[in-house]
Amino acid sequence: MTPEHTASEMHPSRWGDPAAATALPEATRGLVELALGVRDTPAASAVTLPAPSIDAAILDDFRRLLGDEHVLTEDDVRRLRTRGKSTPDLLKQRIGDLSDAPDAVVRPGSHDDVQAVIELAVRHHVALVPFGGGTSVTGGLVARREGFAGVLSLDLVRMKAAREVDTVSMTAVLEPGLRGPEAEALLAEHGLMLGHYPQSFQFASIGGFAATRSSGQSSAGYGRFDSMVVGLTVATPQGTLELGSAPANAAGPDLRELVLGSEGAFGVITAVKVRVKKVPAEKVYEAWQFASFAEGSDAMRHLAQNGLLPTVLRLSDENETAINLSSQDNVGGESVGGCLMIVGHEGASIAGRRALVTEALTSLGGTPAGEERGRAWAEGRFHAPYLRDSMLDVGVLVETLETATFWSNRDRLYTAVRDALSESLGEKSLVLCHISHVYETGCSLYFTVAAPQADDPLAQWDLAKQKASQAMIDAGATITHHHAVGTDHKPWLAQEIGPVGVSILRSVKAGLDPSGVLNPGVLIP
Amino acid sequence: MTPEHTASEMHPSRWGDPAAATALPEATRGLVELALGVRDTPAASAVTLPAPSIDAAILDDFRRLLGDEHVLTEDDVRRLRTRGKSTPDLLKQRIGDLSDAPDAVVRPGSHDDVQAVIELAVRHHVALVPFGGGTSVTGGLVARREGFAGVLSLDLVRMKAAREVDTVSMTAVLEPGLRGPEAEALLAEHGLMLGHYPQSFQFASIGGFAATRSSGQSSAGYGRFDSMVVGLTVATPQGTLELGSAPANAAGPDLRELVLGSEGAFGVITAVKVRVKKVPAEKVYEAWQFASFAEGSDAMRHLAQNGLLPTVLRLSDENETAINLSSQDNVGGESVGGCLMIVGHEGASIAGRRALVTEALTSLGGTPAGEERGRAWAEGRFHAPYLRDSMLDVGVLVETLETATFWSNRDRLYTAVRDALSESLGEKSLVLCHISHVYETGCSLYFTVAAPQADDPLAQWDLAKQKASQAMIDAGATITHHHAVGTDHKPWLAQEIGPVGVSILRSVKAGLDPSGVLNPGVLIP
Repeated sequence: MTPEHTASEMHPSRWGDPAAATALPEATRGLVELALGVRDTPAASAVTLPAPSIDAAILDDFRRLLGDEHVLTEDDVRRLRTRGKSTPDLLKQRIGDLSDAPDAVVRPGSHDDVQAVIELAVRHHVALVPFGGGTSVTGGLVARREGFAGVLSLDLVRMKAAREVDTVSMTAVLEPGLRGPEAEALLAEHGLMLGHYPQSFQFASIGGFAATRSSGQSSAGYGRFDSMVVGLTVATPQGTLELGSAPANAAGPDLRELVLGSEGAFGVITAVKVRVKKVPAEKVYEAWQFASFAEGSDAMRHLAQNGLLPTVLRLSDENETAINLSSQDNVGGESVGGCLMIVGHEGASIAGRRALVTEALTSLGGTPAGEERGRAWAEGRFHAPYLRDSMLDVGVLVETLETATFWSNRDRLYTAVRDALSESLGEKSLVLCHISHVYETGCSLYFTVAAPQADDPLAQWDLAKQKASQAMIDAGATITHHHAVGTDHKPWLAQEIGPVGVSILRSVKAGLDPSGVLNPGVLIP
Repeated sequence: MTPEHTASEMHPSRWGDPAAATALPEATRGLVELALGVRDTPAASAVTLPAPSIDAAILDDFRRLLGDEHVLTEDDVRRLRTRGKSTPDLLKQRIGDLSDAPDAVVRPGSHDDVQAVIELAVRHHVALVPFGGGTSVTGGLVARREGFAGVLSLDLVRMKAAREVDTVSMTAVLEPGLRGPEAEALLAEHGLMLGHYPQSFQFASIGGFAATRSSGQSSAGYGRFDSMVVGLTVATPQGTLELGSAPANAAGPDLRELVLGSEGAFGVITAVKVRVKKVPAEKVYEAWQFASFAEGSDAMRHLAQNGLLPTVLRLSDENETAINLSSQDNVGGESVGGCLMIVGHEGASIAGRRALVTEALTSLGGTPAGEERGRAWAEGRFHAPYLRDSMLDVGVLVETLETATFWSNRDRLYTAVRDALSESLGEKSLVLCHISHVYETGCSLYFTVAAPQADDPLAQWDLAKQKASQAMIDAGATITHHHAVGTDHKPWLAQEIGPVGVSILRSVKAGLDPSGVLNPGVLIP
């Protein structure tokens, strides 16, 4: 049951499926012109890759192991494995900087293949960068080259099976190369689903979801990806690690939680046993309006703390609400004011729960704003990254970052990060925020910024990102709620977990990967 | 708000508060006589401790650090810090074997004290055994003495504050020495509770709950203790580790999950930030009858997989159902047959949820068996360990062990462990089982055995435990769902997580505690 790899490749300097890309909607373009000014950027030019910097004899060893057709050095293939999809990644591709390209791409077909690739990489001291969907936004695909005989992209594209589908335990074993829709399609054959829908869903992979602790838009109902994982198979330089003897146990530290979020630095995840759900018979998405971000998010807190969470629960702040409403042609320009909340209910029979949530939201100051806006959100839920490309095309810097904290620290964190971004990006910038993941004890905050591009937009964003990141740590929050550490977040991870925490990561790394070939430079400060 | 340490000490060779102990109920005694025969064991004799084996000069250093009154060498104090409360622990105390007694007991009063005690222990190469409630049943308090200048019990009894009670985030910071009822009393001042009720609740401590990944009788509603933890402060030989910047995040591996279950081998937990709940306004416990263990547990699975879990959910197998009903005088000897399920609902308003659960259980073959039996369970929920003492007194070997697995493996595991115990303990033994913790993907299995004591009951149990443990691992299950590894489970932990998993634990240990003074011999195979 291994499907062919049919998912489309992404454009190297843009998001997603080129056929799905759209020009900037007129309403948004008008807003952009008004607020930010427009500066058309040159179309991406054909860029030349640095020549592969690895001994041919080494590649021959990998060819003997995997077969010639699974060791690729073509420019197109290497370009598509260069960095991820953060705005800086796209900007670098646009200006022809492909200095982080891997020397070659290797495609193992099985756990044993991965194990053998790792052993060969250790022998030749070649760096390995595990590659799933290529959607990292934190520099997770940019390995350190210095000191290594070369850098190989370890593309998991051939590992796309769903195995051991267990409708009694409601679990399934998924291979790491499965992209979101591919995994859902295989599970749907059994009437099952995962329910993990990050914005990168259409391209990101099962292995990547686990390695980065991804969280999706239905996390209120189905949980973070890490909470869906009950077992893991990992190939490491020390051999195979198999974890997951029970849903939960007390057999020492939970080593699954050490692999989750390890970004390929400890080992390569070759199988993920996940908790699955029945495909819901009913789905409804509806909008609610609240007078303010504080009032709306207090209502979210009430739901989370009283066992009333719907499947989807999101709240835009005043700025994001204004932009969203003005940019969605299918909704029209009508403004509801205040803050828009999206509430989604999915399940076998949702009426009872929906009634309870409706009653609670009403009592907490919410006003129903219709299913039409809810549907519009659901239909456009994976589209924002395309919009970023269109904005970059017209000279607007667009990027996102996110954090999380406990409820009582929400306002302090919100203000600190918003102000850091606004101050750094200037008065012509827009800073939008939403809450898309809630817990009994706290919530995430997801910021989107738009600003006129400076002459050096990379430096412009780097400074803003530094200021915002430091604001998060200074506010006692996390450097990332659901986008991992990569290379970009390392200085702040070091502050977040402190020197003893960093020493633990280093001990584990030194024990599992003493020669350091696994994604060097990523995760560990 | 640090309460005095008023909780009673336990008898060294018996469970709990001597005032609460009771003789064997007549009905049970009749059963015991009939099934097992009775062999009165001699009353515990006054046993002599080995003399402290540590240099006086070393103890003087600890006295200078903590004050004379917090470094104790009296026999009574040392005896009460010797081992835990497994049946082998009690049997050893009964025969006067106190060879595992610590040389002295040190009582730090703060995180900084603990940090300083660790530094002093490293300097003098003295082993430290963190001590909370002393309720380990897996040998977690038995440190290796060889190679060390002495063994100190690090008693956390002075650290009993509840701090930073946050009714917005619904979190509180609890110190590790708080016993279950003490923590609940401090939280109750704010209308809050933890909701963690293991059978050891009355004596076990917050630090121990975290260090052993405890799970309580209300886990269906409130979760395992590890799932309640959102932050940890840990004193290690490398310095202080502070974790918990958000309810959840993607900032690398979740290091909290490495501390949880680490049993003092990586560091000493000095504060636990927990998620708290409002004290429920309503509570009801009721009994249900099912025709068989399989039918009852299928019903539990249905509840877990359909978002219908009550607060308490337990199911006894046919054997345990028969014994429980016959031994509870307040219920009378009337047998309902089949399998008894206890369902507890707690909350602000439970009628709606209770109706849904009642409807589901009825449709799945359940028959209501009354609130009286439910109340009887709730009233006797912490009493079983006292009963064990009474059984040991009359020559019956009583012990428990537990495991967990995925639902589709439930029957295989149940049969394998039951048969291993029955075969090892002989035809006069009784093997009872219940499910007390359920997940969407699986459940725990908790076994209680009773058998006539052989001439060497320690060897008798050791063999049975080995057979049952190997049966768990051979069935692909975990060696423990909620009682940690200690020294007893190490050989099977090694099989469960494999050599790569063991190497990770060793790497972390070597990095955090290179001189190995923290609970040596515990946890790490």
